Amino acid sequence: MIKPTEPIKDFNQLVEHLVERKIQKRVAVVWPEDGHTREAVEMAIQAGFIEPIFICSKQSQELYGDRFQTILADDPTDASVKAVALVRDGGADVLMKGFVNTDVLLRAVLNKETGILPKGSVLTHVAAAKIPSYPKLIFFTDAAVIPYPTEEQRQAQIRYVVDFCHAFHVEKPKVSLIHCSEKVDAKHFPYTEGYLQLKEMAKEGVFGDCIVDGPLDLKTSCCAEALAIKKIDSPIGGEADALIFPNIEAGNLFYKSITLFADAEMAGLLKGPMVPVVLPSRGDSNKSKFYSLALATMITIDS
Amino acid sequence: MIKPTEPIKDFNQLVEHLVERKIQKRVAVVWPEDGHTREAVEMAIQAGFIEPIFICSKQSQELYGDRFQTILADDPTDASVKAVALVRDGGADVLMKGFVNTDVLLRAVLNKETGILPKGSVLTHVAAAKIPSYPKLIFFTDAAVIPYPTEEQRQAQIRYVVDFCHAFHVEKPKVSLIHCSEKVDAKHFPYTEGYLQLKEMAKEGVFGDCIVDGPLDLKTSCCAEALAIKKIDSPIGGEADALIFPNIEAGNLFYKSITLFADAEMAGLLKGPMVPVVLPSRGDSNKSKFYSLALATMITIDS
Repeated sequence: MIKPTEPIKDFNQLVEHLVERKIQKRVAVVWPEDGHTREAVEMAIQAGFIEPIFICSKQSQELYGDRFQTILADDPTDASVKAVALVRDGGADVLMKGFVNTDVLLRAVLNKETGILPKGSVLTHVAAAKIPSYPKLIFFTDAAVIPYPTEEQRQAQIRYVVDFCHAFHVEKPKVSLIHCSEKVDAKHFPYTEGYLQLKEMAKEGVFGDCIVDGPLDLKTSCCAEALAIKKIDSPIGGEADALIFPNIEAGNLFYKSITLFADAEMAGLLKGPMVPVVLPSRGDSNKSKFYSLALATMITIDS
Repeated sequence: MIKPTEPIKDFNQLVEHLVERKIQKRVAVVWPEDGHTREAVEMAIQAGFIEPIFICSKQSQELYGDRFQTILADDPTDASVKAVALVRDGGADVLMKGFVNTDVLLRAVLNKETGILPKGSVLTHVAAAKIPSYPKLIFFTDAAVIPYPTEEQRQAQIRYVVDFCHAFHVEKPKVSLIHCSEKVDAKHFPYTEGYLQLKEMAKEGVFGDCIVDGPLDLKTSCCAEALAIKKIDSPIGGEADALIFPNIEAGNLFYKSITLFADAEMAGLLKGPMVPVVLPSRGDSNKSKFYSLALATMITIDS
């Protein structure tokens, strides 16, 4: 068990933390047939926090076979199926997508008989961002998978981000339920009424040690001054550790706005399956893929 | 008629343009009983591009009466009704909200008998942002008014942003229809199918001289490199002049992300009524209110 320490506030601290504690997790890399995947994986190998298992072509096997475990696959589909089977057998702690279409990998992950999504488990995207002008990491969901979360899915999302924050040693994370304003408006935005219930559940301890508040907008969630100007009282105090977005468009716009215009560093993964799935986009930087592997490793530690 | 010139690329150029051409518009300032409204209005008076008409208390009348036109009002509601009546009578070119609740002013604007929203006109929020890392102004809608635009409302939104771009001397504005990705997905996101129709209408010239494309995400709309990586061909080429957001949450998250984390300067107003309505939020900076007045002035010029 990792001793409680100071909260991890950026990705450098995260990598340092993993390295200092000699944490290493087994990552099944699905069809690593492109330069981008290889570079990100090599960075994580160099840093020392992953032990890769390449599910790959004959060519890649010749490249990696001497140094690392490899499993031969015929094509991206075959590699996906074999990687998922490996996870089911307890042979990997993290799954990482290589040069495979997302659909192909997800089909293997979600297969009802041979897949790795436990029954009743909610599959959602969770990301962590370090924005230069914000003093700590901020976790958020969902920018990529669930279009319009149901109440039940939103509960799972809160549970996930709270667990992530705890893994990062944020003892009592502040989780903001995001909307355009601070008003509950059941007529136009039914989810804002749902937020009230989520707050009640949080108070009852359903999500573990955390503070949940909302509806709040992005500014009142992340800026104490904005909160004061609006004369709003919120236990989050403009210092959110995590944001729950009402829908995928809002999450996606946040993700892309801060990446494109605010120099944010980003890590993300799919939560819900037996192991976290790192699913980089073509547009992600190598650094972002590397940080995603670090994030997946960190939340896989048994605490 | 203003001669076509180079596109106006930021707010300083906008203010210079108004000043150099000695453009001045009559702004009805509704209940200017707070310091913030006064400061922003004073800035615009100093710059020279507005002639204020204060619809105000007796106290403010004593303060402003010597220098400017004033209309005495009893309270915020009375001021709203009187300002709207002034606009109806052709006595003002722009309406600006002072220390009044938005609901109160909007009630006067939207009143079916005495209001100033022409029948069939779509009321929506249009904003302009200057993000330091983006080389030009970007117009967008809707971050504040319409929760989930109908197809008809979206057509009006396109018309508005195209008109705004033309007013800013962008001859053939590139308008991006925003989504999380570039895929049309009628099942989960019916509006993406609607986008196809809007593109067709644009080709037929319905919106005037412009390029409309989508669905595109924020990155492929505003970053040529992201477009290339995804191997997408779009006439927008990662150089969008305007963004149409699928819903208010997406628009609002864009607005607040770039303001809070990317040092964006912002101007915004309501379009649809007989005159533009500047409706600052409590959290807006004086500069933002000043730029909003400049924006309203600019789009009010007869071309």
